[in-house]
Amino acid sequence: MPTESAPRPVTVAVLGGGTVGTQVARLLTDRDTDLHIRMGTSLKLTKVAVRDLTKARDIDPQYLSDDAMAVATSGADIVVELIGGIEPAKSLIMAAIKAGSSVVTANKALLASDGASLYAAAEAEGVDIFFEASVAGAIPIVRVLQESLSGDHVTKIMGIVNGTTNYILTKMEEDGASFADALTEAQALGYAEADPTADVEGHDAASKAAILAELAFHTHVTREDVFCEGISNVSIEDIRAAKNMGCVIKLLAIAERMPDDSGVIVRVHPTMVPQEHPLASVRDAFNAVFVETEAAGELMFYGRGAGGAPTASAVLGDVVVAARNRLTGSTGWGESADVQYPVLPISEASTCYYVNLDVADRPGALASIAQAFADAGVSIQVVRQDGHGEGAGLIVRTHRASDGALQDTVNRLRKLSTVKAVVGVMRVEGEAGA
Amino acid sequence: MPTESAPRPVTVAVLGGGTVGTQVARLLTDRDTDLHIRMGTSLKLTKVAVRDLTKARDIDPQYLSDDAMAVATSGADIVVELIGGIEPAKSLIMAAIKAGSSVVTANKALLASDGASLYAAAEAEGVDIFFEASVAGAIPIVRVLQESLSGDHVTKIMGIVNGTTNYILTKMEEDGASFADALTEAQALGYAEADPTADVEGHDAASKAAILAELAFHTHVTREDVFCEGISNVSIEDIRAAKNMGCVIKLLAIAERMPDDSGVIVRVHPTMVPQEHPLASVRDAFNAVFVETEAAGELMFYGRGAGGAPTASAVLGDVVVAARNRLTGSTGWGESADVQYPVLPISEASTCYYVNLDVADRPGALASIAQAFADAGVSIQVVRQDGHGEGAGLIVRTHRASDGALQDTVNRLRKLSTVKAVVGVMRVEGEAGA
Repeated sequence: MPTESAPRPVTVAVLGGGTVGTQVARLLTDRDTDLHIRMGTSLKLTKVAVRDLTKARDIDPQYLSDDAMAVATSGADIVVELIGGIEPAKSLIMAAIKAGSSVVTANKALLASDGASLYAAAEAEGVDIFFEASVAGAIPIVRVLQESLSGDHVTKIMGIVNGTTNYILTKMEEDGASFADALTEAQALGYAEADPTADVEGHDAASKAAILAELAFHTHVTREDVFCEGISNVSIEDIRAAKNMGCVIKLLAIAERMPDDSGVIVRVHPTMVPQEHPLASVRDAFNAVFVETEAAGELMFYGRGAGGAPTASAVLGDVVVAARNRLTGSTGWGESADVQYPVLPISEASTCYYVNLDVADRPGALASIAQAFADAGVSIQVVRQDGHGEGAGLIVRTHRASDGALQDTVNRLRKLSTVKAVVGVMRVEGEAGA
Repeated sequence: MPTESAPRPVTVAVLGGGTVGTQVARLLTDRDTDLHIRMGTSLKLTKVAVRDLTKARDIDPQYLSDDAMAVATSGADIVVELIGGIEPAKSLIMAAIKAGSSVVTANKALLASDGASLYAAAEAEGVDIFFEASVAGAIPIVRVLQESLSGDHVTKIMGIVNGTTNYILTKMEEDGASFADALTEAQALGYAEADPTADVEGHDAASKAAILAELAFHTHVTREDVFCEGISNVSIEDIRAAKNMGCVIKLLAIAERMPDDSGVIVRVHPTMVPQEHPLASVRDAFNAVFVETEAAGELMFYGRGAGGAPTASAVLGDVVVAARNRLTGSTGWGESADVQYPVLPISEASTCYYVNLDVADRPGALASIAQAFADAGVSIQVVRQDGHGEGAGLIVRTHRASDGALQDTVNRLRKLSTVKAVVGVMRVEGEAGA
């Protein structure tokens, strides 16, 4: 927008003085942004709310305050929430919106539990709420779904959205490390927390899956709607079997629309992915989001999913867009759940399975096993005899079937006298023409 | 934006009834977009300007017109230009802007030759000009650079932005095909045109490089500023040498800012890329753009770079955003060249080189060759003896040096009596810590 004189500076208050908050404060005070380049005005940091004023940190003390609610309601153009968790973050965001501020947040847990009420409050007040940093760090997947793909129809999203688990799985695959050893290494490097539950059990990925599904399908999806299985049971045996099948194992957050538009399914679980699939080459703590749409076809977005600077980049991008909207008196895309597909259980999902069995080496074993698949209505793609442990090992890859039918198959297999043990079961995604 | 009653429909006129124009017309008439979902109004196709009214095409004849200027100046909210080339496209776009229409275009040649005057005209009239489809088809790299990374600073962009050449290089690498055979195959499949010059000589990629550089660095860059070398001289020998070095050869469009901010360099040339680099796994006709920024670090965007449906997806995304802006009375990011770095020649670029030499097998050969590198101020990273043809083969990989010094080295090598032939020379990018 051309303006006669230089517009006023846009004020920004930050809630949270952790790694990301410190980076955001530094970027705001250190250098010019596109806002300055294109609109001739600058962003002005007003306050940074921190819990402990006495703690040493890399922010000029003149900006610090320990009264988060006062900072949230200070009337800044933009309030950046980087505290995380449900409360007090939610009350602070709601107060900031009511005070007329636009909000930028990285709070995936809050958005996945109650994003709808935040979006509604922002719309009612005519302010922006942006949250690019809440999913996949620096990867701009939120804006891509909201704007770039707004003339297309998304059919499926598959994301590696948790760096900790991707690092662990990469170490297991490349170094042959056990899950426990890879986790210890990730903790030593700061990639995993002392209590790694939220990451390794898939809860973090599930929150992000809910946010992505809501954006892609205009349907309210919360964390509770997401089927969630972590990687703590992934064994070296599974990793080796995946390699034999030309696959790698990734923890994927998957959101898909049923082909007949009957609903959407959102799920997080360890998944075998063919080595030639673009997601297979995403290593270490990197994130990537693979999107399938009707017109654009296959797209993938890759980058750093965590860390102070990458997250701060995403936050600042949101701040600049929100600032521009403040100056022009407009707001960005609101969230809409007007389509509101039913959210279906995972049993309705259609996937392929890999099943790894220890079987009794006697006549008729294969026949009884094949019958169990047939009885559940699941068609077999490949069977391979393999020599692991005592007796014979059998690896079965199925054709696409409902997840419910596949679960039923596994239950039937467990009851067979010819099956000594079900060694591994995993869903397979990303196969061409599967 | 909440609205009291349903807003009016937004009118869209299309210039060009080719593959993309037909797809855009179909998507506009077939189905709802995010605009309908979020704002309760729809996009209304008014006219499609075509050259030949009698030609059979998949567009309802009621929409067709052969008077492109009348369609461009019909006062539609949005005019979509899909004719391509400089004229009449430029006159039509200028007329549409003057008539108050926002413009969406996929015209890379025009933007790379005279984007600045189009952006200025749009800004003067207070309308949008969007061009997501002009670079890398369905990959939303334009909006990412304009909005998502607006709080960050881009340092370098490396893109596989031409599907034809990537297909040819993939066939050469994977099937051992010669350039000529791979080109013939690409032509048979419709990936390459009868006259493949624009693709294989890098001109298409150079136009896209100019557009990307302008967006990333806020600096006017035209096609003429871009150093351009195509792939027609890439030999099977080069492909094999790349493999031996753990690399693949890609035609990259590279735009980079000098570390001391003294300028930007934009170049297109065959490049050796380490196999573990994310760009190395981009196969066939796919495109990808790898972006390095100060805060976000490394990002990559991958997808289909051409084809009717993917390009139409990018066009429709722009149309929906422009439509929303029409309804809210705002405009999107304008283009700004206020930073205006000097555009430097490729001799100032800092790269590594691979040099493949046929050398006389006699004492002192290596010494004279090493001296040629030293005299030009280029430091050698690895030398490998190799047995090709008669005499000895020598492969040298250099450390990073100015492209000018590397060119100077090659000129010196050509004059040495110990060098029978300079078999191959190629720049190397994407090495960790090179």
